[in-house]
Amino acid sequence: MKETILERRTRLLGPNVPTFYETPVHLVKGEGVWLWDADGRKYLDCYNNVAHVGHCHPHVVKAVSEQAATLNTHTRYLHDGILDYVERLTGKFSHDLSQAVMVCTGSEANDIAMRMAQAVTGKTGFIATDNTYHGNTALVSQISTRKPPIGGYSDAIRLVPSPDTLNPLGGDLATQGAAFRREIQQAIDDLNERGVGFAGMVLCPSFCNEGFPSLHDGFLDEAVKVIRAAGGLIICDEVQPGFGRVGSHWWGHERVGFAPDIVTLGKPMGNGHPVAAVVTRPDVMAAFREAFSYFNTFGGNPVSAAAASAVLDVIEGENLVQNARDVSDYAIAQMDLIDHPYKVNVRGTGLFFGMEYMDHDGNPASVFVVRVVEEMRKRGVLMNAIGRHRNTLKIRPPLVIKKPEIDFALEALSAALKVVPL
Amino acid sequence: MKETILERRTRLLGPNVPTFYETPVHLVKGEGVWLWDADGRKYLDCYNNVAHVGHCHPHVVKAVSEQAATLNTHTRYLHDGILDYVERLTGKFSHDLSQAVMVCTGSEANDIAMRMAQAVTGKTGFIATDNTYHGNTALVSQISTRKPPIGGYSDAIRLVPSPDTLNPLGGDLATQGAAFRREIQQAIDDLNERGVGFAGMVLCPSFCNEGFPSLHDGFLDEAVKVIRAAGGLIICDEVQPGFGRVGSHWWGHERVGFAPDIVTLGKPMGNGHPVAAVVTRPDVMAAFREAFSYFNTFGGNPVSAAAASAVLDVIEGENLVQNARDVSDYAIAQMDLIDHPYKVNVRGTGLFFGMEYMDHDGNPASVFVVRVVEEMRKRGVLMNAIGRHRNTLKIRPPLVIKKPEIDFALEALSAALKVVPL
Repeated sequence: MKETILERRTRLLGPNVPTFYETPVHLVKGEGVWLWDADGRKYLDCYNNVAHVGHCHPHVVKAVSEQAATLNTHTRYLHDGILDYVERLTGKFSHDLSQAVMVCTGSEANDIAMRMAQAVTGKTGFIATDNTYHGNTALVSQISTRKPPIGGYSDAIRLVPSPDTLNPLGGDLATQGAAFRREIQQAIDDLNERGVGFAGMVLCPSFCNEGFPSLHDGFLDEAVKVIRAAGGLIICDEVQPGFGRVGSHWWGHERVGFAPDIVTLGKPMGNGHPVAAVVTRPDVMAAFREAFSYFNTFGGNPVSAAAASAVLDVIEGENLVQNARDVSDYAIAQMDLIDHPYKVNVRGTGLFFGMEYMDHDGNPASVFVVRVVEEMRKRGVLMNAIGRHRNTLKIRPPLVIKKPEIDFALEALSAALKVVPL
Repeated sequence: MKETILERRTRLLGPNVPTFYETPVHLVKGEGVWLWDADGRKYLDCYNNVAHVGHCHPHVVKAVSEQAATLNTHTRYLHDGILDYVERLTGKFSHDLSQAVMVCTGSEANDIAMRMAQAVTGKTGFIATDNTYHGNTALVSQISTRKPPIGGYSDAIRLVPSPDTLNPLGGDLATQGAAFRREIQQAIDDLNERGVGFAGMVLCPSFCNEGFPSLHDGFLDEAVKVIRAAGGLIICDEVQPGFGRVGSHWWGHERVGFAPDIVTLGKPMGNGHPVAAVVTRPDVMAAFREAFSYFNTFGGNPVSAAAASAVLDVIEGENLVQNARDVSDYAIAQMDLIDHPYKVNVRGTGLFFGMEYMDHDGNPASVFVVRVVEEMRKRGVLMNAIGRHRNTLKIRPPLVIKKPEIDFALEALSAALKVVPL
């Protein structure tokens, strides 16, 4: 018997290596918002935030190829690439967020960010929400409830309930911000009582993993106030909302309207090339650089800087932030028109959408949503589920998606919703 | 006044970002063993183990460029690239080291390896040497004396004295292995007394950062015995010696002749592309994969797998392990001929050489060696210093270096040694 690709994968990579879908897609080619599998089947990518400016964007491919053929070594030697890029990147931030460390993954970025907060405060305690993921190093897995750390959570970690659209903290959407602030204050008090002290809070400004609840401008103002009053730093994980995905702004924290002390960047930054960064103020950077002699061999190497710079070129040159805004408004209007007895909520910011489903008894329709995801895959559209109960369709296409492709996806969704049993 | 590149670097990246040389080299181009700076000055690279098969090797550049233009997404979808590579990579290991996790950096690899040992043993304590570096995540910096962790070492870490050529542990090269074993046993006992228990020891099989002492085959046998007897795992960091650099074998642990439980790979693996890996036995992998749901977005993506695979092609196609052996013997013979009153030792394994210097009072000639390094840079040859006192010239060229280039380097060294004041 010939070994299947899944059997081969288990033999070589081990058990329990995550895949998407009951029958995972075996991809061989990508272009723009489209992917092709080994059988020549075409899929519309409505999920991938790595291929931010579209799969295999020729401008990014050219930048990577040319730089790889010219020079690719580490940053203990001087090179203009990393400097040109950091100058350009930090130019997109306010709040004196003017310096950066370039690394290879969002996990590395958050691992550094947490140590920056420790270096500044001299404390070790962190707060995150109770339904999130910020990365996979030993330290960062301490604030990742999706992948709990080996050996359990340390005393230095406190998890607070995450905000929600349909079940807001405190029972009321209008006062959810105050309820979130009270939870954070309680966690800070706990960390101080435990003697570890409070170094900071790590949060995604769109609470993407939490199910991207509908949040109003200023939602975090009260939380920010108590974090600052306690001497903690705010680490803003922009791995998902950053680089224009929110449509209204370049960064998720701008949309919600607060000033982070540290911003971490990852997935979309190099359109698939392993590049990530930590952006912060000079005072925070100096505290970190004095406390720890950090050097990352591949971080900010000439090819990584070229890939990241090309991504900025494309976002700017193709007006992709504007595109995210325009397509977002259109898509939400179209999603609102979709009729289904389980459908209870449509929400979205830029090119990040959710469609939430509850059954007739008012319970999260988790199994139903998984079946819809599988049905969509059969119909050639890749999306996924999210939220505490995974009863929300998560739709997060590359930033280059246009209205006709949204139509294609939503027509498939309407058809899928008709055939998936209640 | 125009801002210099160093001033610009400090403004954008912050203070205390490490560079090489008093006046760092500003590189713009690389090819094979050669590098060019912004003024058109040419340098022989005798230090870089990232550009393992030579700077900008056309076969690797082509593989990266073609795959980047075809598909580059994450491994939650199936792709043959990662499987073909892991099959080929693990084929180069014995001891049932038949499965791998692909990641982006050596730091990520060691961060996982340590958690694998924790998952297998249920203990948290680690041993490393007192003069080493294994990476820069919060966890891995706990076993990195070159870059001590923020907040100091935890109770779960014990550092043992590293082996040395001129000052062997226990005073005698022949019995240094037994002395090393006694230190490790003491550290294991301490970890058990502290209640953290012993998860494993992380070591470089060539003790590269420690100054790559001369070690005989079987040097680690006694240490391995007490580690195993205590139930700990041996994590072998092959970031520096791996991929044929030692010349006699593909891996450093083969040269010393022991069986690691986990092997970590990094720098040379993708010739500059950010790719790294953890290779282990199925039982260790299963323990890790059951304890922690690990997923690395960029790890093993199609471009990373293509880069890494192309590096294997070149090592095999150009017989670079054989080249490392041949050039090594030649280089050591030539280095032995160099005459200088401070020169006390020449050593090397494959394309990793040391030349140690002591002054007339028998003290490490640290300042002298730094001056030699600077003088070599002026003469167009890049190398560096290493060892506890940084009194050993460290010469570690790309694996494609040939005898005429060794001659060029050593002629420059002879001349440099004549002009650097004692």
